[in-house]
Amino acid sequence: MAFSNTALKRPAPSAVASAVEALAARFGNNLITSQAVREQHSHTTTWLPMQPPDAVVMAQSTADIQDVVRICAERRIPVIPFGTGTSLEGQVNAPAGGVCIDLREMNRIIAVHPDDLDCVIEPGVTRKALNEHLRDQGLFFPIDPGADASIGGMAATRASGTNAVRYGTMKDNILALKIVRADGEIISTGTRAKKSSAGYDLTHLFIGAEGTLGIISEITLKLRGIPQSIAAGSCSFKTVEGACNATILAIQTGIPLARIELLNAAQVAACNVYSKLSLPETPLLLLEFHGTEADVAEQSKMFGEIARECGGGAFEWTTRQEDRTRLWQARHDAYWAVRGLRPGAQAVATDVCVPISRLAECVAETEKDIAASKLVSPIVGHVGDGNFHCSLLCDVNDPDEMQRIEGFLHRPVERAQAMDGTCTGEHGIGQGKQKYLVKELGPEAVEAMRALKQALDPHNILNPGKILPQA
Amino acid sequence: MAFSNTALKRPAPSAVASAVEALAARFGNNLITSQAVREQHSHTTTWLPMQPPDAVVMAQSTADIQDVVRICAERRIPVIPFGTGTSLEGQVNAPAGGVCIDLREMNRIIAVHPDDLDCVIEPGVTRKALNEHLRDQGLFFPIDPGADASIGGMAATRASGTNAVRYGTMKDNILALKIVRADGEIISTGTRAKKSSAGYDLTHLFIGAEGTLGIISEITLKLRGIPQSIAAGSCSFKTVEGACNATILAIQTGIPLARIELLNAAQVAACNVYSKLSLPETPLLLLEFHGTEADVAEQSKMFGEIARECGGGAFEWTTRQEDRTRLWQARHDAYWAVRGLRPGAQAVATDVCVPISRLAECVAETEKDIAASKLVSPIVGHVGDGNFHCSLLCDVNDPDEMQRIEGFLHRPVERAQAMDGTCTGEHGIGQGKQKYLVKELGPEAVEAMRALKQALDPHNILNPGKILPQA
Repeated sequence: MAFSNTALKRPAPSAVASAVEALAARFGNNLITSQAVREQHSHTTTWLPMQPPDAVVMAQSTADIQDVVRICAERRIPVIPFGTGTSLEGQVNAPAGGVCIDLREMNRIIAVHPDDLDCVIEPGVTRKALNEHLRDQGLFFPIDPGADASIGGMAATRASGTNAVRYGTMKDNILALKIVRADGEIISTGTRAKKSSAGYDLTHLFIGAEGTLGIISEITLKLRGIPQSIAAGSCSFKTVEGACNATILAIQTGIPLARIELLNAAQVAACNVYSKLSLPETPLLLLEFHGTEADVAEQSKMFGEIARECGGGAFEWTTRQEDRTRLWQARHDAYWAVRGLRPGAQAVATDVCVPISRLAECVAETEKDIAASKLVSPIVGHVGDGNFHCSLLCDVNDPDEMQRIEGFLHRPVERAQAMDGTCTGEHGIGQGKQKYLVKELGPEAVEAMRALKQALDPHNILNPGKILPQA
Repeated sequence: MAFSNTALKRPAPSAVASAVEALAARFGNNLITSQAVREQHSHTTTWLPMQPPDAVVMAQSTADIQDVVRICAERRIPVIPFGTGTSLEGQVNAPAGGVCIDLREMNRIIAVHPDDLDCVIEPGVTRKALNEHLRDQGLFFPIDPGADASIGGMAATRASGTNAVRYGTMKDNILALKIVRADGEIISTGTRAKKSSAGYDLTHLFIGAEGTLGIISEITLKLRGIPQSIAAGSCSFKTVEGACNATILAIQTGIPLARIELLNAAQVAACNVYSKLSLPETPLLLLEFHGTEADVAEQSKMFGEIARECGGGAFEWTTRQEDRTRLWQARHDAYWAVRGLRPGAQAVATDVCVPISRLAECVAETEKDIAASKLVSPIVGHVGDGNFHCSLLCDVNDPDEMQRIEGFLHRPVERAQAMDGTCTGEHGIGQGKQKYLVKELGPEAVEAMRALKQALDPHNILNPGKILPQA
């Protein structure tokens, strides 16, 4: 199951030593080479083996990023940008060594423009810190991938999460980026205008590029007004199909669902134990509506009728903060509930995304596959987007179980791709999913990606070994 | 005022003759070389001089596009994709000659997936034809740039229009593209999944590239359910600033405006004459709300209160189809009303886009500039996006007026760029706005665009002379 990047050549030790020397002279204490810190900056949250960088620089400014890139570019040393390290597919590993640029101290909120509903921030700002800052102005940034990730990392991995069904993903919420390119110069990708048709869309090219085309040093984000009222509700279904049908109908009807999350029966059972709930152990939908009081009341009522038509149980909803929190507790605790099923086990996360008409079928087949593979893996889904996650419990010291997991992991991807879906809705390609890219888009698309990489990073120093399968 | 592309070399006449011969053998009657047809396919709707191609092929299939590109690529002959010819910045001109690929007969709707709210179409389908086809299924495609443009052309120019404030622009409504690349091979940019983080965002790279990186041969579009109820309303303001403030407040409040259009006093006066209306000749907002009956009633009521706070007159609104049509008549006739001000005159259109907080100031300065330049140019604006259009009446045989227009045209752009806005919100760069690109994004961004162009079209045969300023 080890991930190999054999085609990726490490730079000569003398080149690395020379870069570290130059970085030490420039950055002093902000250059760190201790093994503990290097390991903290390699990828530890997945099944992928850890590959630490040779050194870590705590960047304080765009000029710092530029200088690291220049020093490394001159010596052909890899640079790997790092936000909070919560990516799931090996995005911050350093398979050829090199210098990790830790951006978490670049966490200034440079400007907030309430009239324009936008803000300009540094990449190390986390989504919770941003929302904390914005709250008094009645504004919020809607993308919520679960972890308190850095906005820079979320942009680099094209993250999304529970309320993408209403607010879109990172790609829909960024107006412009400032990018440090492979030679250390700055590219500005856009303005604060809400829309533009001025030239190639550089903004979207860098979103989701996982730091392989340039390093994000500043982000102009769209913001939203905090809704006057928020309603939350839940509804049990006999089958995943019933839950998916209700979702499809609600979207077709035009109900502006803010969140609609599916927990499969296994996930509900895990949550009952972990969060001491007594939910029926069948597929569950959790919903949220945003709007005026009248809006959310009407939306909730409409959804209740749709749920009933689709064989759902009673749809309970509330606008009271404490009741909403209680309702959503199962979802918020989902990850820990899974971990609680087998204390000490690791959880391997994977995600795929299909057209919503195929979601029920894809989830049902995956549930059967999990059972047949004798694995433990509850499923949660951002069902409005056709996106779902498996959390596979594993004992890394049990080679038989690890082998079954390795065999399993390909199949949701194959299933999704056969249904005109994608191998990853929101986790990205990183190292873990490179092998699926050609199958999904064809060799010509991957050739085009390679040509773009070659055009913008001719010496392959920007986060090498990510996204593009080794030729 | 002539546009020069002196750096662009025409291919040798013998190469063109050889290509035309090969195309004739392959395409028979679908190859046209008559002067009349070639001129129809060059750019005639703007101030830019007409530059006809050497030949036109009426493509019937992706294979046809591939064969044209292969024949031309081999001989280094330019290929220029053509939809309906309604672009405004010279996008379909052929400054170095070459072969125009007319896509209007590639107008099949390949599949509609109502459960997934998407469809797959050929690029020659126009937006009206698509909506006609979708109506019975309760679906619609929201982007409306005014002209009944082809969806392929709208994708290629990153078009938007009156309801982008709610539904976004073309970039927000395309899931995937099939692209014929510069050597005639096919690139598939995505799947039907609603979201994906699988690799570089090729879809957005080709949207807005104006056919310079590849030719769009198939499009997977997002669709919407036709709203249960539509309300329309209008409100006069004493100043553009009042109208803009009302718009800002409505957006901040979270009212999901479907359309919010500004007509300045000069435009209202023109419409009064042309459409025999008696609107107060002050800035006017026209609005549309989509939702349930309760939604649109609440939204209309809320907007009415906001308008009053911002110094607006009475806000009249209605859900009756015939009354809505009457209310919006002024907007729909705006272009003809402008032309009616001086029969026989041409209208030169330009658009810019600024952060909405700067819109009132930008429009006011532009109004003063128009008056000082002794020009006639009403203004309409997609005010929710900060985007506005001038329609400059001109007599092409009056060199003095043409000179004043030439002098004028730069200034809205300079004004918008100084306000952190863009030189074009929705018309694109084409030939007309190349000179503004470096100023807007900096030389590094334009260098990056050049590198992308070189990577995907190394012989510069795909719509050469567009977007990128000659080096």
